[in-house]
Amino acid sequence: MKELKLIEYIKRSAGKTPKGLKLGIGDDCAVIDHDGKKYLLWASDMVVEGTHFDLKEASFGAIGRKAIAVNISDIASMGGVPKFVTVSIGVPRTMNISGTKKVFDGIFKICKEYGITVAGGDTVKAERLVIDVSIIGFVRKEKLVTRSGAKEKDLVLVTGPIRDGKKEHLKFIPRVKEAQFLVNKYKINSMMDTSDGIALDMGRICDASRVGCRLFEGSFPLSKGLSFEDALYYGESFELLFTASSREVKKLFTDSSLKREGLKYYIIGEITNRKKGKSIFRDEGKIEPIKMKGFEHI
Amino acid sequence: MKELKLIEYIKRSAGKTPKGLKLGIGDDCAVIDHDGKKYLLWASDMVVEGTHFDLKEASFGAIGRKAIAVNISDIASMGGVPKFVTVSIGVPRTMNISGTKKVFDGIFKICKEYGITVAGGDTVKAERLVIDVSIIGFVRKEKLVTRSGAKEKDLVLVTGPIRDGKKEHLKFIPRVKEAQFLVNKYKINSMMDTSDGIALDMGRICDASRVGCRLFEGSFPLSKGLSFEDALYYGESFELLFTASSREVKKLFTDSSLKREGLKYYIIGEITNRKKGKSIFRDEGKIEPIKMKGFEHI
Repeated sequence: MKELKLIEYIKRSAGKTPKGLKLGIGDDCAVIDHDGKKYLLWASDMVVEGTHFDLKEASFGAIGRKAIAVNISDIASMGGVPKFVTVSIGVPRTMNISGTKKVFDGIFKICKEYGITVAGGDTVKAERLVIDVSIIGFVRKEKLVTRSGAKEKDLVLVTGPIRDGKKEHLKFIPRVKEAQFLVNKYKINSMMDTSDGIALDMGRICDASRVGCRLFEGSFPLSKGLSFEDALYYGESFELLFTASSREVKKLFTDSSLKREGLKYYIIGEITNRKKGKSIFRDEGKIEPIKMKGFEHI
Repeated sequence: MKELKLIEYIKRSAGKTPKGLKLGIGDDCAVIDHDGKKYLLWASDMVVEGTHFDLKEASFGAIGRKAIAVNISDIASMGGVPKFVTVSIGVPRTMNISGTKKVFDGIFKICKEYGITVAGGDTVKAERLVIDVSIIGFVRKEKLVTRSGAKEKDLVLVTGPIRDGKKEHLKFIPRVKEAQFLVNKYKINSMMDTSDGIALDMGRICDASRVGCRLFEGSFPLSKGLSFEDALYYGESFELLFTASSREVKKLFTDSSLKREGLKYYIIGEITNRKKGKSIFRDEGKIEPIKMKGFEHI
């Protein structure tokens, strides 16, 4: 995985986090001191023609929507509420202004749904359509959830059923509501969004938290037609992956508002001691190590 | 200018600035309430192979440097000090990991010079090299300078001599020091950086401030070899363009620390009533309207 090596290099080069920056590279968002009560969450995600979408398959509006949605998902996964975006767009010479406007119509539509304001950006010429969105959200300090807080004996959960990234990557719904319900009522130890497949993303939580995990194939909630392999190793499903103590999970599943709010969470495994590694219990009784592979961004 | 029309469309669609956002689209940075004393400044600028650099001409390190420098310039131009960046990079399949690392070496070098921390980002595959940087800086509330504060009878100044964007766009020095000196000691009414040529950028200050201007060719400080036409209509020089009352300008030019600090500012015109339009007094005695054209990003 070139991407993982590169991120390691960048992380090493970035050095220590200075005053004012609570968390830098390594989580879904950077975390910046804001005021006494809140942190500012900040993320940037880029979508590129040919890698994240295909102009034959996707409408301009759907592409704009996706560029925002992947960023909303980053804010959600740390317990935050998205507020502002900047949109940098590289527009091919072959694309006319009405196409570009349609991209922005898609952007403004989802921004409106989530109460987000477009606060700036950049428009430039490019060979292929590329959109980079930078997003700012806020989280109450005590509600911040990172990748590094998973504890031995935690249960591992996902929102879901896990979506088929191949089919739904243009229309997934970022899980802000699900995340807000969790962090406002329960103690969530770790969380991230599954942009690169559950295997790789579970591995990231384990590495950041210095723990191991056991996942159970049988308990994976798969959306119709989605193979277990794709849930594990293909990304772009944008569900939330999180861990909490079994006590908290018990409280969560006996919460009468779950059904009323239409919220679904599923237990797919447990956190173990680091020495036990990262494994999957397959349906046929085999135990397999989780491969650290996933959606290849690079 | 397709870009201008598009920005107008985006600005209109973005609607009103909500609570917490002091300024949205239309300045070099978005301005967000931070704490009692400071605003957070936030900008995103994208550089694309073929538009902003050419792999034959530019080293990977120089490209990384430029991607950061154009963003630092945005923060400087509103009176702020840059602090954090996220870096989203689209890497062509043909570019190996050592090339990508060199881009980041260029990024980290300039970040170190300016006290900036890389706090996050995204790495993806792309057809052509593209880097989008999002930058956060801070400014004391009373020091914030925007495009919209120019007043009739202000003098128009630039840092300089104005650089030749065609030759120096990879190695220009963002004018943080020059801007900090100005905002910390003087009352600057409006400011922006000249990324698109002085004509277009002067026009932006005039439109935002609802004033006109008269520029004087004879007073333009041009770096060696730079034509007046290029200073006006070709961008990428990244000097600061600003206005202040003649009283403040007089104080500035009698400031004994100017020379000691090696700071250079030049008067190139004056702000007039809006009805007088935007004009240039050419050396041969002709008066020309300023054309609203400049560096074509799109």
